[in-house]
Amino acid sequence: MFFFEIERESASGGGEDQNLLLAAAYVSDAQYNRNVPFETSPRAIRLYYFYNHWTMQVAIYFFICVDLSLALFEEPALFPLPFLATSLAEVLCLTAFFGRLVHFAKVTPQMVFWKDMKNICIMVTIVLTLIDLIIYGSLEAVNVHSVRWSRALRPVFLINFPESRQIRRTFRSIRNTLPDILYVFLLFMFSVLIFSLMALKLFGDRGLKTVEGLPYFTNILDIVFELYVLVTTANSPDVMMPAYNFNWWYCLYFITYTIINTYIFMSVFLAVVYNNYRKHLKNEIRKLAYLKRHKMIEAFNILKVKVGTEFVVTEAQWRRLAKVVAPHISSPHLELLLRISDEGQKGHVDKVSFLRLADLLNIQVVTINIRRHPLEDWMPRVYRSSASLLVQRMVRHRIFVWVYDVIILINAIFIALDERNPFISYAEWLFLSLYIIEILLKLYTYEPRAYFGRRQGTHKMECYVMVGFLFFFFLARKYNSQQILDIVLILRILRLLRIIVSIQRFRVIVTTLINIGPTILTFGGLVLVVYYVFAIIGMEAFHGKVRFSDPNFTSPDALVCGNPALKDSAFARDRYCKNNFNDLASSFIVLMELTVVNQWHNILSETVHSQAAKLYFIGFHIVVVILIVNIFIAFILEAFFVAYSLEKSEVETAIEKKIQELGVGIQEEEMQDGMLVDNVDAKDSGFSGDDGDNKRKDLKGLYFRIASKKYRTVDALLQQMFESEIAPEEEGPSLDEILNFSPGDLYPKNPNFENSA
Amino acid sequence: MFFFEIERESASGGGEDQNLLLAAAYVSDAQYNRNVPFETSPRAIRLYYFYNHWTMQVAIYFFICVDLSLALFEEPALFPLPFLATSLAEVLCLTAFFGRLVHFAKVTPQMVFWKDMKNICIMVTIVLTLIDLIIYGSLEAVNVHSVRWSRALRPVFLINFPESRQIRRTFRSIRNTLPDILYVFLLFMFSVLIFSLMALKLFGDRGLKTVEGLPYFTNILDIVFELYVLVTTANSPDVMMPAYNFNWWYCLYFITYTIINTYIFMSVFLAVVYNNYRKHLKNEIRKLAYLKRHKMIEAFNILKVKVGTEFVVTEAQWRRLAKVVAPHISSPHLELLLRISDEGQKGHVDKVSFLRLADLLNIQVVTINIRRHPLEDWMPRVYRSSASLLVQRMVRHRIFVWVYDVIILINAIFIALDERNPFISYAEWLFLSLYIIEILLKLYTYEPRAYFGRRQGTHKMECYVMVGFLFFFFLARKYNSQQILDIVLILRILRLLRIIVSIQRFRVIVTTLINIGPTILTFGGLVLVVYYVFAIIGMEAFHGKVRFSDPNFTSPDALVCGNPALKDSAFARDRYCKNNFNDLASSFIVLMELTVVNQWHNILSETVHSQAAKLYFIGFHIVVVILIVNIFIAFILEAFFVAYSLEKSEVETAIEKKIQELGVGIQEEEMQDGMLVDNVDAKDSGFSGDDGDNKRKDLKGLYFRIASKKYRTVDALLQQMFESEIAPEEEGPSLDEILNFSPGDLYPKNPNFENSA
Repeated sequence: MFFFEIERESASGGGEDQNLLLAAAYVSDAQYNRNVPFETSPRAIRLYYFYNHWTMQVAIYFFICVDLSLALFEEPALFPLPFLATSLAEVLCLTAFFGRLVHFAKVTPQMVFWKDMKNICIMVTIVLTLIDLIIYGSLEAVNVHSVRWSRALRPVFLINFPESRQIRRTFRSIRNTLPDILYVFLLFMFSVLIFSLMALKLFGDRGLKTVEGLPYFTNILDIVFELYVLVTTANSPDVMMPAYNFNWWYCLYFITYTIINTYIFMSVFLAVVYNNYRKHLKNEIRKLAYLKRHKMIEAFNILKVKVGTEFVVTEAQWRRLAKVVAPHISSPHLELLLRISDEGQKGHVDKVSFLRLADLLNIQVVTINIRRHPLEDWMPRVYRSSASLLVQRMVRHRIFVWVYDVIILINAIFIALDERNPFISYAEWLFLSLYIIEILLKLYTYEPRAYFGRRQGTHKMECYVMVGFLFFFFLARKYNSQQILDIVLILRILRLLRIIVSIQRFRVIVTTLINIGPTILTFGGLVLVVYYVFAIIGMEAFHGKVRFSDPNFTSPDALVCGNPALKDSAFARDRYCKNNFNDLASSFIVLMELTVVNQWHNILSETVHSQAAKLYFIGFHIVVVILIVNIFIAFILEAFFVAYSLEKSEVETAIEKKIQELGVGIQEEEMQDGMLVDNVDAKDSGFSGDDGDNKRKDLKGLYFRIASKKYRTVDALLQQMFESEIAPEEEGPSLDEILNFSPGDLYPKNPNFENSA
Repeated sequence: MFFFEIERESASGGGEDQNLLLAAAYVSDAQYNRNVPFETSPRAIRLYYFYNHWTMQVAIYFFICVDLSLALFEEPALFPLPFLATSLAEVLCLTAFFGRLVHFAKVTPQMVFWKDMKNICIMVTIVLTLIDLIIYGSLEAVNVHSVRWSRALRPVFLINFPESRQIRRTFRSIRNTLPDILYVFLLFMFSVLIFSLMALKLFGDRGLKTVEGLPYFTNILDIVFELYVLVTTANSPDVMMPAYNFNWWYCLYFITYTIINTYIFMSVFLAVVYNNYRKHLKNEIRKLAYLKRHKMIEAFNILKVKVGTEFVVTEAQWRRLAKVVAPHISSPHLELLLRISDEGQKGHVDKVSFLRLADLLNIQVVTINIRRHPLEDWMPRVYRSSASLLVQRMVRHRIFVWVYDVIILINAIFIALDERNPFISYAEWLFLSLYIIEILLKLYTYEPRAYFGRRQGTHKMECYVMVGFLFFFFLARKYNSQQILDIVLILRILRLLRIIVSIQRFRVIVTTLINIGPTILTFGGLVLVVYYVFAIIGMEAFHGKVRFSDPNFTSPDALVCGNPALKDSAFARDRYCKNNFNDLASSFIVLMELTVVNQWHNILSETVHSQAAKLYFIGFHIVVVILIVNIFIAFILEAFFVAYSLEKSEVETAIEKKIQELGVGIQEEEMQDGMLVDNVDAKDSGFSGDDGDNKRKDLKGLYFRIASKKYRTVDALLQQMFESEIAPEEEGPSLDEILNFSPGDLYPKNPNFENSA
């Protein structure tokens, strides 16, 4: 509701404030890389702010979650609910989606709205779902069971709402890769077919038998399928053994096949996917960079006034703008940004500096308020006593960290040992108290807010783990619940992670891994969408084929998973009964196992025994393993290559320079070594001895540093690389040109952009 | 013996000829990127030529093959031979290697020879092998069986001889990658350990049982091993099933584990390997490019004479030099090269052009001698008759190709159908005659030499396949041998490959795949080396543990592979008895299966049952799967990225331009479409109408084209990219500097070189 109030307040202020608001809308658009053009009436701007308000976004995500999770309650259900309940919930969700769409239509020009495939998609899906609901409901009323096919369309809502930009981008990347992949795939299938023909001729007439006693390689379709499975290595030596046992030389056939199809073709798939991923990633990012520039210029044009020969934005306007765009920014921080934007302190901000505003607001600057330790204020004599100082020096020493690393290692060994030994379970109490002592000592030595505000959040994590551990530990003692004890055990082991952070050489890898965390969530969304569609199809087609009984229940029926056809099969023998499509959760786990690929032919052939099922699994393999997993690998490769060629961004450098100039910076290295207070003291004296400038006074006692120097996503890095190539004064292409960029345009126009690879 | 004779001949010609020879040595060095500095005495040069003569190289490879294949005849042997025979053969090989080394020492300065680790390595290995032979022989004489450990050192000879530069380069790449890999590996192992501890605590006390009825996850070492196997996905759902059957939620643990360790960490390994591979590849190639430049300058300095103000090489000297370096070059081709080098026809070659000589000689230019069809000479009336012309036009038409593509497809379907049907086996005769008719028609239409000389060698391949097919077909009919029939079947199916070449969209992929062929052989060498070492160790440790009997022989002993401990094991059940270490060939196949990774825990645990064996297999996995397979994937990725950014080389462009200028070129596209003769006729008339220049007369009637415009290796492409950055006049760094380049130097000095990525 925040934006909304600000807006009402300023709407009374007349035309200039409206301009400010419009400019603010442009800037916040540029800041978050949205690309929704909108009208300029105050009502439209208000609606636009409301549309982008976080409560609305949370609400829409809530409805998407409800809609997707309905599959848990519908037949075949994990928690059965009557059809009426689920269909009412679904209609409610659809209404919410429709409302959101109408809202979006209000803040978007008609032309743009109807040209956007996303909106059409959502509308079509809503209509189709309603039709399906009505048909299914009326058939159900007369007791005819039909298929709820529209459930497979539900992920459309997740993909197509403007907030899921990342997932859409990955989908676009996949769509663009398809033609290239297709040709490689055809060649690959041709190679599989050629090898299948060879196998038929070589092994078909030998009268060989598989281990199960079935004829070996006699039917061309079976051979193609077996060889496709061999590409995934799932049946690797098994499929070869009959021929190899018959004649030594036949293994050469399988070795050749594996080299060509498993190693070379799978690598070619990765190469094609990676090449396209990189090309499209760069194109998208170039588009975003130009859009951002475009919007910042629009905002500048709205606010500019002429001073002397050049157009500028006045300091007062700039301040108000920044306050509207980023209402929670602290005023010292704002002051710092202004000092960077208005280098010469002329009272106005020129165009080049103004264009950087969105970037400046995006960089997280941590404001550190240097205070003395509360104990020092409370009982200075005791805290400053020589014994206390000795303790503090001890805690700050490197050896203190090392000692605790050793303690953690010993703890790990104790965890690995047998817990039923009473000595060891007492030792656990000892370790617990040692950890508590450590935290208390640190809190005694460091100023608490400084201690918790550190980079990488190691200390925060440590304390959370400890608090959580203690909480669950006593909870478990009280209620004696297995689940809670499990959590305690996991938390106890997570404490060991601390040791990684204290080894310098691991930090680069760990940092990169943490950096890619958010994007991995994007892949999570993508995988969710694909899994959901496949799970719905799988449940409709295969549910009820096998049944899982309690593992200790060993009736003959339970041993064959309730399906007599599975007698003596590998599926029943390996106790795979729980790998079924009987509800959404089980389906997801089966799909996960299929993604890992191993044993998939067993999970498959024994569950269903039909050609259609084989096609289902091959389709799943192509979509998930060949496309998505390869894109995931491409993403990790790119992230590491970018990490290896890490540079500091221009804007960040400017901020840091200014922070240093003003003498309010803190070296990251100092922070790490826990020397914070000592160094700050030294700097403090130097700073206060400076001249009493008015603006500097605001900053006094505060220290800044850039929070996330090493914490940047691949996107951010690429964007920064590209932005440094747009000349500051350049207007960039027109909006239409920007929106129609194709990857092909990338190379001739920007020959040097390849550098970022 | 060729060089040797030339040398003797010219040695009598006095000092100038000696200089020529020295220059020729430099040029041929540069041409093949050898880097052996040598003395300048005529005897040394003669020895040097002799050292590099192909007979010597073939001889040394023969001895390396003999040495390596000795493992087939030694205990445990595939073809047993007495110890005396194998040890004599080994001593003979060692003598040959030593002789080669002495020869190398003679053509190399003392300092360089002794500084080279390769030579020391070979000498140490020879001595160690002799010691081992003596000890083993004397112990054998008193009937004590010991271990022939020096056999694992044999690949040293393959790696360290100067001819195996490619394999060494890959090894260097691996060595350089090791430190980076090590840190990722430690982190990875740490993660596995953390998860193992969790598994112990979560599942250890549940009293769960595996499918085999063994306790589930109770011993920390077993857990670590199981989880390591899970990273390779080999035991993917099986290891999870007991916990999953017990409680639904425990699958989350395994899913988290798989995502972190299988997907993320394995990708990080690939990223690190790939990054290092690219870095070192570029460094090596930069080194080679500078070395080449260095040697060409040396050669120029030897031959230069002053004409006017600049130093040049006279045309006569240039011709003699080219003849010595490339004795088999045709004189029209030489003329063409001279025309390119001596652009202004001034009778001498300037420095810049001279430096290109090695590249010019390296580019394969195909000389096409346009002649009329022999039939046209022999019976012009018949060949030129309208019926004959109609046939020729028909054969040249696109539809002719399409018709045969359809015939091939129909043939494929017939192959897939049941062969015992008499109709189908008659159809095979029909297809055979159709193919023979096709070849005859083509030979009738096209000039035979032109037909066989085409690019991609499709026609050549086709004919070889046909001839081979007919040969083996009649051989099989005569001797009725199974092996020969198998070859016939395979050849019959290989004919189908033709269809790929005729589809334009596949050509890029196929071309790239063919381009990387030679380098894949390098990986073959690398894999051979690693497999050999592991096979020798495996045979010493595990031979005789299982025995393979005829598959139809079903005595209880044969069913458990001769090892009662294997009763009821998956190993015996799946008939894995032939997967053993009882001889070199079987060991190689087992190692191949382990490379593919699937079922490796079965192949392993059932074969040997010991902790040492687990370490053996983990070591193998790290070396082969994590390092070598990833380097292989990196190589294929790089090859495809380079193929996507393909450009024409400068030197090739110069040659093509000159060929076009002289009007003796043939467009590749014309060649492809089988329009050769028609177009050539048209050009011929234009060409003969030109002025009667003396030099052009030599070229008359001949047509050139660059053989391999698209057929270039990754190396060649990178080298060309880098060379275009060395200024033509630049001398480059000194020899010592070049030899001590490190990858770290690469980036600061050549910021643009990254472009090639």
